[in-house]
Amino acid sequence: MNLKDIGEFGLIRRIAPLFDAVAPGAMGIGDDCAILPGAGEEAVLVTTDLLVEDVHFLRARIPPRLLGRKSLAVNVSDIASMGGSPTACFLSIGLPAEIELDWLDEYFKGVKEIGEETGCPLLGGDTTKSPRGIVINFAVVGRVARERAKFRSGARVGDVLAVTGPLGDSGAGLRLLLENRPLDSDDARVLVEAHHNPRPHMPEGQWLAARAAVTAMMDVSDGIDSDIRHILERSSVGGARVDLDTLPTTACMRRICAQYSWTPEELAAAAGEDYVLLCALAPEAIDEIASGFEKMFGRPLVRIGAITAEGGLQYYKNGLPARLARHGFDHFRGNE
Amino acid sequence: MNLKDIGEFGLIRRIAPLFDAVAPGAMGIGDDCAILPGAGEEAVLVTTDLLVEDVHFLRARIPPRLLGRKSLAVNVSDIASMGGSPTACFLSIGLPAEIELDWLDEYFKGVKEIGEETGCPLLGGDTTKSPRGIVINFAVVGRVARERAKFRSGARVGDVLAVTGPLGDSGAGLRLLLENRPLDSDDARVLVEAHHNPRPHMPEGQWLAARAAVTAMMDVSDGIDSDIRHILERSSVGGARVDLDTLPTTACMRRICAQYSWTPEELAAAAGEDYVLLCALAPEAIDEIASGFEKMFGRPLVRIGAITAEGGLQYYKNGLPARLARHGFDHFRGNE
Repeated sequence: MNLKDIGEFGLIRRIAPLFDAVAPGAMGIGDDCAILPGAGEEAVLVTTDLLVEDVHFLRARIPPRLLGRKSLAVNVSDIASMGGSPTACFLSIGLPAEIELDWLDEYFKGVKEIGEETGCPLLGGDTTKSPRGIVINFAVVGRVARERAKFRSGARVGDVLAVTGPLGDSGAGLRLLLENRPLDSDDARVLVEAHHNPRPHMPEGQWLAARAAVTAMMDVSDGIDSDIRHILERSSVGGARVDLDTLPTTACMRRICAQYSWTPEELAAAAGEDYVLLCALAPEAIDEIASGFEKMFGRPLVRIGAITAEGGLQYYKNGLPARLARHGFDHFRGNE
Repeated sequence: MNLKDIGEFGLIRRIAPLFDAVAPGAMGIGDDCAILPGAGEEAVLVTTDLLVEDVHFLRARIPPRLLGRKSLAVNVSDIASMGGSPTACFLSIGLPAEIELDWLDEYFKGVKEIGEETGCPLLGGDTTKSPRGIVINFAVVGRVARERAKFRSGARVGDVLAVTGPLGDSGAGLRLLLENRPLDSDDARVLVEAHHNPRPHMPEGQWLAARAAVTAMMDVSDGIDSDIRHILERSSVGGARVDLDTLPTTACMRRICAQYSWTPEELAAAAGEDYVLLCALAPEAIDEIASGFEKMFGRPLVRIGAITAEGGLQYYKNGLPARLARHGFDHFRGNE
């Protein structure tokens, strides 16, 4: 037996029981961040993310400044998804000896930019040689008021599912890159930018975390098709209903999909890397929260479905059961 | 210009000024750990270490259980070198899809063992595919009483330099492996074990951190030849004198050196990965601290030299100036 027989989630299930004896007040494997006891009412959040060249990015296709931004932004997004704010970041980077200093200068410029924009200074790390491609690991430490922290595990039957922004732009941008489509239209540029330069929804996360009616929250990294299943599993609830007609998409993403005969709802549900927030909310509070969210951010909090008692994740379109052609991504198995 | 023209320390010097605006109460790049404000009198320590297959380890030469132990132990050693204790660890691991589950089970068994021995539970991380070799990054969060934390930066002219254990065993073990020497003698087994299974000197670090006369501390990872230079630079002192005759070595390391005509003091000074602690101490306190250390740990705190006003790092042997054949290791330049 080897790793590709069990896949990434199989590996996590295999090793998690070895590490279940955690410190009092701490929570570990299974959420966007680990949470540790901090000062007074505060808890400490820790998250970490490994990017490997040719798996997570193609050096020739992403400008180094944007790679710097994105490699830190995806971790700040994990902090945002718990309702927290970042304290500092730590970068381990493995580099081929022949890499150009210009590339490095641009990469670190991007790291500095996003660190300043999100209040997340670089405080340390490790540099080393890598004989075969760039390897980047960010660890981000953050903080959150303990009673406000949101997890994947609090969703209840009847809760509404909602997202804080459009889905599928990043996936469409990635598909344009992978299929070597022309990138000289405004639409293509916007979508590739969405893929290369995601904005962590930190203000949105902190605002939602202050509402007790928000029962579960995470960021959309694998795609809602996979991410909703994580919420169902961690919350021990039986299912969810998602209305594909309600998934928020941008006009430029729909125009590009029309041009290449791609299915917008498949990209919106399964392509991932949107880094908007996905949350579950008590149904009696949704109107007030959605209205407050729109006043605060000038954009809607978009309802896409609900938690159900059973049946797993079920899609509907025009009120009828529907199927998605693609499923989530498992690193060791490829697309399933 | 590319990276190998400036080397690892050149890269760090190039990027550090970009990231000098740190949070109040925080200290960043340039020590074994970063230090962040924590609860009350406590500070939070963070350290991270990236291991790349074929750079830091050879999969065929280290048993996976020992790689699991070592990959976490070297980070706990960084926490120990500040006088702290670990709180939790976070593992990012990139794996080839064809890796055997038996290898993974043994690797995680080693992580669990050293985590339990040092009080450092695994609370999260990231798993991903790596197309070309194993990549391992541990981030470790720890804590220390703020007024006890030791840095590389406090050494003063006249301070004594001392180490908490023997030097060169790990380097001799590595050299046996790299030169494909027979490993079936007791001596060879002990040295290879020292290379594969280092013990973080955490009790020693905490004991030394409680002494105000200890002015600087770090762990010996690159070898004292390189590590003492880090202390000189961070402490802004002009030099150090090291008496090669006084470097503590084990009898089995000296026997192996005699067998292969290796020079023991070169391995002791420059080979690194000993993970003992190197510290500077006020000269008036050294006798009392050395005697207390020996009572506490049943082994000596070994004096190897002193901080001087100028002249850089100078070696002596039998009272006469001496030179080392090897210098420290720079990842992007190889051995210099």
